[in-house]
Amino acid sequence: MLKAVVGEPNVSTAAVVLEQHGHDESMHRCSPPDAVVWPQSVEQVSRLAALCYDHRIPIIPFGTGTGLEGGVNAIRGGICFNLTHMDRILDLNVDDFSVTVEPGVTRKALNSYLRDTGLWFPVDPGADASLCGMAATGASGTNAVRYGTMVENVVNLEVVLANGQILHTSGQGRRFRKSSAGYNLTGLFVGSEGTLGLITTATLRLHGIPEATVGAVCAFPSIQTAVDCTVQIIQSGVPVARIEFLDEVMIDACNKYSGLTNAVAPTLFLEFHGSQQGLEEQLRRTEEITQQNGSSHFVWSEELEEQNRLWAARHNAWYATLALRPGCKGYSTDVCVPISRLPEIMVQAKEDMKTSGLTGTIVGHVGDGNFHCILVFNSEDADESRRVEEFVKQLGRNALAMRGTCTGEHGIGLGKRQLLKEEIGPVGMETMRQIKSVLDPKNLMNPGKVL
Amino acid sequence: MLKAVVGEPNVSTAAVVLEQHGHDESMHRCSPPDAVVWPQSVEQVSRLAALCYDHRIPIIPFGTGTGLEGGVNAIRGGICFNLTHMDRILDLNVDDFSVTVEPGVTRKALNSYLRDTGLWFPVDPGADASLCGMAATGASGTNAVRYGTMVENVVNLEVVLANGQILHTSGQGRRFRKSSAGYNLTGLFVGSEGTLGLITTATLRLHGIPEATVGAVCAFPSIQTAVDCTVQIIQSGVPVARIEFLDEVMIDACNKYSGLTNAVAPTLFLEFHGSQQGLEEQLRRTEEITQQNGSSHFVWSEELEEQNRLWAARHNAWYATLALRPGCKGYSTDVCVPISRLPEIMVQAKEDMKTSGLTGTIVGHVGDGNFHCILVFNSEDADESRRVEEFVKQLGRNALAMRGTCTGEHGIGLGKRQLLKEEIGPVGMETMRQIKSVLDPKNLMNPGKVL
Repeated sequence: MLKAVVGEPNVSTAAVVLEQHGHDESMHRCSPPDAVVWPQSVEQVSRLAALCYDHRIPIIPFGTGTGLEGGVNAIRGGICFNLTHMDRILDLNVDDFSVTVEPGVTRKALNSYLRDTGLWFPVDPGADASLCGMAATGASGTNAVRYGTMVENVVNLEVVLANGQILHTSGQGRRFRKSSAGYNLTGLFVGSEGTLGLITTATLRLHGIPEATVGAVCAFPSIQTAVDCTVQIIQSGVPVARIEFLDEVMIDACNKYSGLTNAVAPTLFLEFHGSQQGLEEQLRRTEEITQQNGSSHFVWSEELEEQNRLWAARHNAWYATLALRPGCKGYSTDVCVPISRLPEIMVQAKEDMKTSGLTGTIVGHVGDGNFHCILVFNSEDADESRRVEEFVKQLGRNALAMRGTCTGEHGIGLGKRQLLKEEIGPVGMETMRQIKSVLDPKNLMNPGKVL
Repeated sequence: MLKAVVGEPNVSTAAVVLEQHGHDESMHRCSPPDAVVWPQSVEQVSRLAALCYDHRIPIIPFGTGTGLEGGVNAIRGGICFNLTHMDRILDLNVDDFSVTVEPGVTRKALNSYLRDTGLWFPVDPGADASLCGMAATGASGTNAVRYGTMVENVVNLEVVLANGQILHTSGQGRRFRKSSAGYNLTGLFVGSEGTLGLITTATLRLHGIPEATVGAVCAFPSIQTAVDCTVQIIQSGVPVARIEFLDEVMIDACNKYSGLTNAVAPTLFLEFHGSQQGLEEQLRRTEEITQQNGSSHFVWSEELEEQNRLWAARHNAWYATLALRPGCKGYSTDVCVPISRLPEIMVQAKEDMKTSGLTGTIVGHVGDGNFHCILVFNSEDADESRRVEEFVKQLGRNALAMRGTCTGEHGIGLGKRQLLKEEIGPVGMETMRQIKSVLDPKNLMNPGKVL
């Protein structure tokens, strides 16, 4: 039986705990640690880690707890390293587009700090997550289609290894834009979910704040035409900053929840960044492509307030879905497939939801081929909970069959370890295990996660 | 004493061999393997690797041999795996912007194959290198400022490991745009220079061919103003596709070599990709910024022939430098620093060349902070060869002191192992060695390189 409380990605206070009375891997119990420490510096983290190493005590890194796959659950007990008291922003270099942050710094805090510099950090998973935590989970979000995910935006990491040693993945204090010096340790630690070490600072790549922003919305006759349109927009070279898909069930839910009047149809929400003149052309070309794909109503605005109104459905998607069944819990899937397979897998997912008697909506970062089914279910109903689990697993396998991944941005955590095995295969798993075993020989770093 | 024959990055036939009579690490002897094999399939590579594993025979992967750091030298003997007979282009997916290539496929062959699809693969190191080799060395080049390096453009790799096992770094046949499933093995193998395994296919991310291209050139009163201009162009959001710097010595050499009349001054060569209208605006904004930085003469063209004329100096930079001292050899450095430090390090390099009595030019991918000093020297002159080595090492250390890297895109190979140690530090080196030791326990994969 499931007892699920899942945080919506764009809720900063999300407490992400999935409770389950059973042994199925796709969901996970809430497991508190034996103790929590709040180190104030990398030296303290290092000394504490060395102590844990000597005494074989598991270490669970903790940032904002906004992760969605149970990564902070202490399933083997141990000590939770709450790193939020390390919250300095260091070494801002405007001309070099780089900054270094400690684990207590969230993306909103950083962007607020950067406000007057003309720069920003674009990766936006929704939640106001810790940037070091975003590095740890390989986060991305709505604008990865333009600015990339964490792996493309982390320049260097300071990591405390299992034995307490302090590693600088690109060399201490380095902040070059590119390098081919030795193995890409930065890329290895990004997305390792705390299983290889504790990230104590991240040096990030910054981007220029766009001169202007335009938001747009357009409805389509089908999922297929909305996805075709997405492919053509990208192929035509329009540097779209966000391109989000909502299915008609989601639109309907949003209309009801927020009193909107969006056409109840598969819909794309777009955002463009650029100069005034550049935006005009991006809009013109995009509108042409939307019309060629059967969208008759392309609405856009360069006024912030009006953009917020246009994007209201997208912004409230999580709560609008929860409101479909008051008192129920939500669960978000996270598969990612080659874009050409999106229509097929989304149509199949909608049919499977219907067949399984489940209620859910779809929202997708379609430019990346990544989408989420948001399921609302009665976690007290054992049978419904089982159907949710089966649906989630089947969707993951459908994605794998289409050459996709079981997780585009949420990570493996506890729940997707079986799917990871199917995704990467035995040699890949063995390679990952070898790396883990040599860097964390006592299996103390966030044990039981990922592998 | 040095006997150097270094291939210019943009010469497809470059034979890259640095011969040295001495034991200094910054240059390297030509070391042929004991035997060469030409496998036709991944199965053959796998069986051959397993044989080598059983008999403890080193393996040296070979693509086009265009690498610049001696990566194909068989310094401990062994078998050269020439992979050029595996030259199929597989699994082109236009809607998904992806393609898979075997090691015999060069970037020009791929782009020729893609010509009618509207897509291209942009990473351009100059040489017509094998794409799998470019993945192995973490190559980049002139347009990384816009399209990224190999690490951002490789989606999946098929790798034969030391023991003959076949690994698919993102899972067999997968070609998603993003994933957070487990450790980033793809990123680990990109840039590992054949020391962790043999890359037998690479799945690549493709990009839309730009509607139009504009080339431009402008001269500056100083290195500082040229770099300031570069920073401002990037910061203003102009998506410049290439931004190359040539110092006044290089411009003078190019004028003489190619009968050009470029102003003898620090100069930026730019290329813009986009739609007709978008390009107009990119040009207008860029010209404004160049003028603000003291450049009085911004010349541009959208005609291909005229663009080639404008860019002639950049295209002929290597040969123009060699022509400064006919009969002499060339050597290219490769440091990369935070952009703000570029003026300082380039001015210092020019002074050091003068002080050392060396002849050389500077060409830089300034948008990335990466530049090359191209030195021409008499390899028969022991004293001059020694001065080249000292200059090269000092430049690497200057870059490290400025938080940079000793190699932006050429890799470590044989010559930069000492600098890598200084760059990454003891814990970083130990981490890399641990990874190497567990994936290649007998140290047979391209031994003696990188670590």
